[in-house]
Amino acid sequence: MKKIINNPSNFVEESIEGLVKSHPDIYAFATDNKRVIARAKKSSNKVGIVSGGGSGHLPVFTGYVGKGLLDACAVGSVFASPSVNQIASAIRNGDNGKGVVCVIGNYGGDVMNFEMACEIVGSEGINTKTVIVADDIASASTEEKLKRRGIAGMIFVFKVAGSIAETGSSLDETFKTASSANNNIRTLGVALSPCILPEVGKPTFEIKDDEIEIGMGIHGEPGIKREKLKSANPLIDDLCKRILDDFKLKDKDQVSIMINSLGATPLEELYIVSKRVHENFSKLNIEITKSYVGRYATSMEMAGMSITILKLDNEIKKYLLAPSECPFWNN
Amino acid sequence: MKKIINNPSNFVEESIEGLVKSHPDIYAFATDNKRVIARAKKSSNKVGIVSGGGSGHLPVFTGYVGKGLLDACAVGSVFASPSVNQIASAIRNGDNGKGVVCVIGNYGGDVMNFEMACEIVGSEGINTKTVIVADDIASASTEEKLKRRGIAGMIFVFKVAGSIAETGSSLDETFKTASSANNNIRTLGVALSPCILPEVGKPTFEIKDDEIEIGMGIHGEPGIKREKLKSANPLIDDLCKRILDDFKLKDKDQVSIMINSLGATPLEELYIVSKRVHENFSKLNIEITKSYVGRYATSMEMAGMSITILKLDNEIKKYLLAPSECPFWNN
Repeated sequence: MKKIINNPSNFVEESIEGLVKSHPDIYAFATDNKRVIARAKKSSNKVGIVSGGGSGHLPVFTGYVGKGLLDACAVGSVFASPSVNQIASAIRNGDNGKGVVCVIGNYGGDVMNFEMACEIVGSEGINTKTVIVADDIASASTEEKLKRRGIAGMIFVFKVAGSIAETGSSLDETFKTASSANNNIRTLGVALSPCILPEVGKPTFEIKDDEIEIGMGIHGEPGIKREKLKSANPLIDDLCKRILDDFKLKDKDQVSIMINSLGATPLEELYIVSKRVHENFSKLNIEITKSYVGRYATSMEMAGMSITILKLDNEIKKYLLAPSECPFWNN
Repeated sequence: MKKIINNPSNFVEESIEGLVKSHPDIYAFATDNKRVIARAKKSSNKVGIVSGGGSGHLPVFTGYVGKGLLDACAVGSVFASPSVNQIASAIRNGDNGKGVVCVIGNYGGDVMNFEMACEIVGSEGINTKTVIVADDIASASTEEKLKRRGIAGMIFVFKVAGSIAETGSSLDETFKTASSANNNIRTLGVALSPCILPEVGKPTFEIKDDEIEIGMGIHGEPGIKREKLKSANPLIDDLCKRILDDFKLKDKDQVSIMINSLGATPLEELYIVSKRVHENFSKLNIEITKSYVGRYATSMEMAGMSITILKLDNEIKKYLLAPSECPFWNN
């Protein structure tokens, strides 16, 4: 895969600077550190929502800064956690005096660095609570749900947390609703081809021309199984069955789905997936209230996709569908 | 490139059906022909805006049906024009009694079929005017501008035409403003890797691992030159210079830019491109009023990107920035 880049060691700074230059009404550098992004128009009198994580996943993480979503975000090198200082800076910038809910993916480096950053800002008087998103059912069993990785489901938590925060809710209320959304999310994906890290120049993993891997992580972490590439429908039926085995849904339950490309897989294929998911859920009398289909959490130019289910109740639905201002989220 | 598809001969129908199932508030099948899409909520008392063309370019064409954009759209097989009957059906569905402006790309099959469809519906009493978008500066010289192919710039024309039509403007006014937008657009792209047609199963063209092609069309049509892959900045400087040689802009002119991925090229790279375009234009004192960065007109999983410039005047700017309802357009 050829890349349109300059010096690979400037990849992150240049892409983030391009993001800020392209949408100056939405994003701003929070400090002179080019790894901390905040809203161009700072909010007031609301709980701050802050995230952060490695680069290479746009629109995750920085793309979701905006009204009704995140207040600030720290971004690390490609597939690497931001530093404790960068995260602490993002939290300080995201705070409006009512405390901050951090929403992060369940990855060792991110969890540890956010924990340390929260301690630092805590000693400065900023109250924080952290929601650790763990939606990838391929990465640990139902019994060990808390060990699961966080992938595309994270964006649903950004949206729900961001929108309840806009109502002026307290730190505890915001944390409670964001946690409730987090508990109602399941994701499972399939990888078709690797991506190439700009500074490494080699594919993140090897996979045969006729093989796919069910449940592979967005950094190439091992999945559930490798198998031969097959038709879309039996593949999607398998993914849906695994999700529904993990997450029991009842007749008439309402869900929102996200069909997310890991990068190269085009919209045409995502809609073939979405069609089949709709058919499967319709047979089970599960109502898909809202579908999101596109590139929401990527791994640069990796081919593959994931299916995310968010079970809705009245509260989660209200905040999911509430307006927001962000180039990557469109209700 | 592996694909998540079923029988390749159902690729178009399944992806379009997925689009409609996923966003039933926006899209509907206009007839029992699964190649004609109209708005779920039909408008009244406005000029209709209709487009159409081959599949494989989502969100182009069908994705841009929605309030403030297209009223109806006919979609052909992958990289092939819709039939005259499909186009005539789209025009009938897009008409609200005030006539229809067709906005299409400059490709032989599309132009011919739209012409014949307009004749048919004309005999039924529907007035039409057609804007043929010809923005790709690589495909013909400045003197032969009307021979140029239509690529990503088409979306700017959809948006301007769609938004003036919402104001209740006449057929002539709508056509005039859409034509004015069309005349103010220039695009130039670069291809890095081919895509694979589902029914063919082979790459659309061959290109060496260290080569790129400047100006290649979105169906693999020949461009201006092949050259060795180089750093992003000199590549973008070359593209910007070629665009500005063709399209003289003055100090303090306002433009909107679209940095469009052909599919696989990720957002991180598009923002590196956008950063450099902003820097180049800033040096020339040309103001970029609004930047669109993403996958707007693709060639499935092709790698590469294009830069589009729309010169703004007060009218074009107003309609570009007017609200719309479509999952793929977010102001």
